[in-house]
Amino acid sequence: MTFSIFLPPIADHKNQQFQLVPALFWLSGMTCTDQNFVLKAGAQKYAAEKGIALICPDTSPRGKGVPSDPGGNWDFGHGAGFYINATEPPWNINYNMYGYVVEELPRYIFQHFPIDSDRVSIFGHSMGGHGALMIAFKNPGVFKSISAFAPLVSPIDCSLGSNAFKKYLGNDLNKWKQYDSCSLISEVSEKLPVLIDQGDQDEFLEDQLKTELLQSASERYSYSMNIRFQKGYDHSYFFISSFIEDHIKFHAGFLN
Amino acid sequence: MTFSIFLPPIADHKNQQFQLVPALFWLSGMTCTDQNFVLKAGAQKYAAEKGIALICPDTSPRGKGVPSDPGGNWDFGHGAGFYINATEPPWNINYNMYGYVVEELPRYIFQHFPIDSDRVSIFGHSMGGHGALMIAFKNPGVFKSISAFAPLVSPIDCSLGSNAFKKYLGNDLNKWKQYDSCSLISEVSEKLPVLIDQGDQDEFLEDQLKTELLQSASERYSYSMNIRFQKGYDHSYFFISSFIEDHIKFHAGFLN
Repeated sequence: MTFSIFLPPIADHKNQQFQLVPALFWLSGMTCTDQNFVLKAGAQKYAAEKGIALICPDTSPRGKGVPSDPGGNWDFGHGAGFYINATEPPWNINYNMYGYVVEELPRYIFQHFPIDSDRVSIFGHSMGGHGALMIAFKNPGVFKSISAFAPLVSPIDCSLGSNAFKKYLGNDLNKWKQYDSCSLISEVSEKLPVLIDQGDQDEFLEDQLKTELLQSASERYSYSMNIRFQKGYDHSYFFISSFIEDHIKFHAGFLN
Repeated sequence: MTFSIFLPPIADHKNQQFQLVPALFWLSGMTCTDQNFVLKAGAQKYAAEKGIALICPDTSPRGKGVPSDPGGNWDFGHGAGFYINATEPPWNINYNMYGYVVEELPRYIFQHFPIDSDRVSIFGHSMGGHGALMIAFKNPGVFKSISAFAPLVSPIDCSLGSNAFKKYLGNDLNKWKQYDSCSLISEVSEKLPVLIDQGDQDEFLEDQLKTELLQSASERYSYSMNIRFQKGYDHSYFFISSFIEDHIKFHAGFLN
């Protein structure tokens, strides 16, 4: 597994007096690696200013021994791990991104880098927005805040998510709901601050992302979220780079 | 030839009342296409704020019919046009980036986009920093300001430049000097404002970029330039994205 980490200048451990810094976990969308956000989002400048580390895992296991979509499609297998632990063969051997992001990666990070494990938040894009919401909802006490760009808010209620969940998890809808933000919201014990940006010209909005499902679920369960529609923006990293400053500052308000 | 253009919201020509905006020409470094700056520099946000268009040509001609380095090396041929008009066969047919950037591309841009041709500046990175300085020095009255990240200030005085110039231009040093900023500076009739940023950990600084040659040439000919060394920065686009706000604001001061 490959990941990227950005440490702000304040964490410079060449200096003997380095200090622990808070961290933001970034979860990317389908087809991305650990590099897309690093190269395209322009987040480092704001993370440096606010003294926050950025941790960017890959979006799936990869490599020769790791099975992927037989037809080479972009929406399943490599690049499309959906941040769940697969239960169906052959996927269950490698596709355990939930456990990787929730346990293995943080354990490794806290061991090797000057990160304050008590000050961690999570955010993501598209499939990674699903991951950020879902993982934070399922792990109370771990994160300080959640944000997402164009999140896929209910994987069980769109074709990209349901096609993948069927292969990774089989046909039991109850297993699917354990990884579905709009289902999990009814049981959330700790209502963290949430900021969501969604472009109104996003080509995936109507059929896949379905922001309105999260809006109505959050109203039904009195979970107040800041969900913003941004006029004229699409699903690209240009959208992310346009609002990344807002998101870093939002999280900094709870991490610092 | 491929190029990218970013128009700020103020130039939106879906609106009937669109207005002409100033423009910045960006020249990239070796191995780059028109996309590197667009995807990695994070310039659009600041260009949008200041109402400036960004125009990004490719760094060389490309395609099947265009000859390149026979060994496929990165430092000559495709991706390494050096912004000159080649005179030696077979390069003289296609490698005319100087004429393209100075004449053909601006003519096309001013014809098809709402750009104010009287408010144009130029900047670039590495080989593109050489291009920005050299082209502005040779074309008084065209640009309002010049800036560069890690410019290759004297192609005739480094191996990357001299190897390429020998193939593109032959052995006549007088022809080389026509494209060399440190040689041209003695004849500059219009001393435009210049901002240069150079990382002091840049792996190409000592052998190729040689910022000190421009420092001494500018002193010799009393051309005052703002040449800044930035501690800890390398040659990458992370360096560019760290200071792009400064550069856009610098140019905006002369364009708006």
